[in-house]
Amino acid sequence: MTALDLVTPPATTPNTPARPAFATAGDVLLIASPWVPPQAWIDHIQAKYPGLRVIHRLLQWATGLAADALSADEWRSVTVLMTSGQSLPNPADVPRLRFVQLISAGANLVLKKPLFTETDIAFATANGVHGPQISEWIIATFLAFNHKLPTYLEQQKQATWKRSTALTEDVLTQRVGILGYGAIGRQTARVATALGMEVYAYTLHPRDTPASRRDDGFAPPGTGDPEGIYPTKWFSGGTSADRHAFLSSGIDLLVVATPLTANTTHLLGAEELKLLGRTRDDGTHRPGFLSNIARGPIVETDALIDALDKGILRGAALDVTDPEPLPDGHPLWSAKNIIITPHISGSSTKYNERVLAILEENVQRLHEGRPLANRVSRREGY
Amino acid sequence: MTALDLVTPPATTPNTPARPAFATAGDVLLIASPWVPPQAWIDHIQAKYPGLRVIHRLLQWATGLAADALSADEWRSVTVLMTSGQSLPNPADVPRLRFVQLISAGANLVLKKPLFTETDIAFATANGVHGPQISEWIIATFLAFNHKLPTYLEQQKQATWKRSTALTEDVLTQRVGILGYGAIGRQTARVATALGMEVYAYTLHPRDTPASRRDDGFAPPGTGDPEGIYPTKWFSGGTSADRHAFLSSGIDLLVVATPLTANTTHLLGAEELKLLGRTRDDGTHRPGFLSNIARGPIVETDALIDALDKGILRGAALDVTDPEPLPDGHPLWSAKNIIITPHISGSSTKYNERVLAILEENVQRLHEGRPLANRVSRREGY
Repeated sequence: MTALDLVTPPATTPNTPARPAFATAGDVLLIASPWVPPQAWIDHIQAKYPGLRVIHRLLQWATGLAADALSADEWRSVTVLMTSGQSLPNPADVPRLRFVQLISAGANLVLKKPLFTETDIAFATANGVHGPQISEWIIATFLAFNHKLPTYLEQQKQATWKRSTALTEDVLTQRVGILGYGAIGRQTARVATALGMEVYAYTLHPRDTPASRRDDGFAPPGTGDPEGIYPTKWFSGGTSADRHAFLSSGIDLLVVATPLTANTTHLLGAEELKLLGRTRDDGTHRPGFLSNIARGPIVETDALIDALDKGILRGAALDVTDPEPLPDGHPLWSAKNIIITPHISGSSTKYNERVLAILEENVQRLHEGRPLANRVSRREGY
Repeated sequence: MTALDLVTPPATTPNTPARPAFATAGDVLLIASPWVPPQAWIDHIQAKYPGLRVIHRLLQWATGLAADALSADEWRSVTVLMTSGQSLPNPADVPRLRFVQLISAGANLVLKKPLFTETDIAFATANGVHGPQISEWIIATFLAFNHKLPTYLEQQKQATWKRSTALTEDVLTQRVGILGYGAIGRQTARVATALGMEVYAYTLHPRDTPASRRDDGFAPPGTGDPEGIYPTKWFSGGTSADRHAFLSSGIDLLVVATPLTANTTHLLGAEELKLLGRTRDDGTHRPGFLSNIARGPIVETDALIDALDKGILRGAALDVTDPEPLPDGHPLWSAKNIIITPHISGSSTKYNERVLAILEENVQRLHEGRPLANRVSRREGY
């Protein structure tokens, strides 16, 4: 799952633990993950919280934890659990458990599990692990398109030196509209601002105050937009009219970074794609560019192909498609001015270290009795 | 010419005009350019400086101004001239001329012209016009390489969905070393910092004080690094030992943005390329990546091919080559992990408007008696 809970309202859930401070003698942190945490990290945590015992068990992404991975006594001792959504114990087996840190950015796998529905144990996602790499993918594909990199890479293969006669439109003063202003959107806004672009943000719930623009989720230090300072204009709402107001605000690059829900399925069809774009300084119309790193079905595939082929869109970059995987030879592959990658924008060698950073952050917050980062709301389901 | 006077020492030339304030009644600005300035821009300037008369003549990049483009009387009236380096009048014909704004980023074409050598008329380059687009090219090619875009674009052509098994190394916490910290280097530093990278800068002259780190050259608003705040470490010097200290400081991405001079020709050979790279968090060595947007001969081509093919370099992106144009079929085209474009990184639809912005900035500075932006030093020759 990618980190897409980007329209989360400001946290209002009461979050102060009534129980004694965490990470005192007797607390046990079980890390169930498909990779082994570095010993240096475990040593660091044990030194920081001498009362905390850290144990690790390997799980498989597909099948989860083996049935005999822990004894019943061991399960009974666990107070904090990091695991995947498909590997949750039964509530009766973990009487001391108070917090579950998921290793995925989404919470969809836990929503119907008894440990989530029948207890008030706190859950947090790994939302934020994808901010840097997916933002890089968004910036890389947009700049590559504008600088004609696909054409030049092709000429390079033919080992021939040939300049395009068309000048490059650099992105300075171009406007990026970010549909869903979460971890990915915020880091994209930071980089886009440095490139001299203007940022407009769209969220489901209004962000009228500085406090409401803050994001308490995880972002690696020096990344993201925790205070919500980059957008020069904020849009919000759940109606078609609300979205159309945003889409027709003169957007050069639309970044789709919203979760797939019943409401966002086919959110962008022929009518919406036509609204994108902007008048250049010389008075001509520059059509919009679409970047989708969220989920394929948010965009109507046929409408997208048509808009590209007719020049209603200037171009598109897709890391997700509908259908997905995109079948060999599907017409989307060869739509005009399109860049497609096979759902890899979230790939990072630093995924695991970032998940451990989130876990460490939440262990510290639990220890201090502060609200958790990325806490899953039982009301909102993400 | 691209904007490469990147190691300019802080301005120390006395620059205050002794003559009366410019842009009062009787002053004439001649714009000799291969494109027509927008009427809106001319109107704006005339409204701002009612005493100033603006005239325009078309010149050809190759042949310059036609001999009869202006009458002798008209030439005698000109007080400010914007033109290309090959179209300079004789000193005797322009008795009232006090400032020449070049439309090129480099000053090399004027250095031996009488108007430069035999007068003290102020000259300024259009350095800074390339900052945004060339920085975008540097970031685009580096991110595209890391995110395997060349591979995925190839697979897209084959209309097939296939994920790479190798994880992406995102650039967060990677270190960029910028050889020549001028307009392009400074804007690259701004974007790299937003991406979470660390910036090291190298200049010919030491920048030990905040004042010396400033850059008074032109940069579009919201771009660049006028105060020199992004580098966390500064290197300088003219010796091989100085450069080796910089190159071996753990650099993941080396950006070559220094002018081509006798001293910088073949600056980067086998020995230097080997110094690049850094130890990853897991203890393994990550070789360096080379990005050259300056001039081909700064890098030894054979050494570069060898370093790429042997994995001494992780990859390279070149917008300039040696020889250039790179002949069809030259082995550099097919070196391992290389991206080559045909010297187009400076291309921008906004080139002309940026040149006019520099001209306007300097007209204003002249009007106020302040030091000019991008002034050419007669001692340094750039």
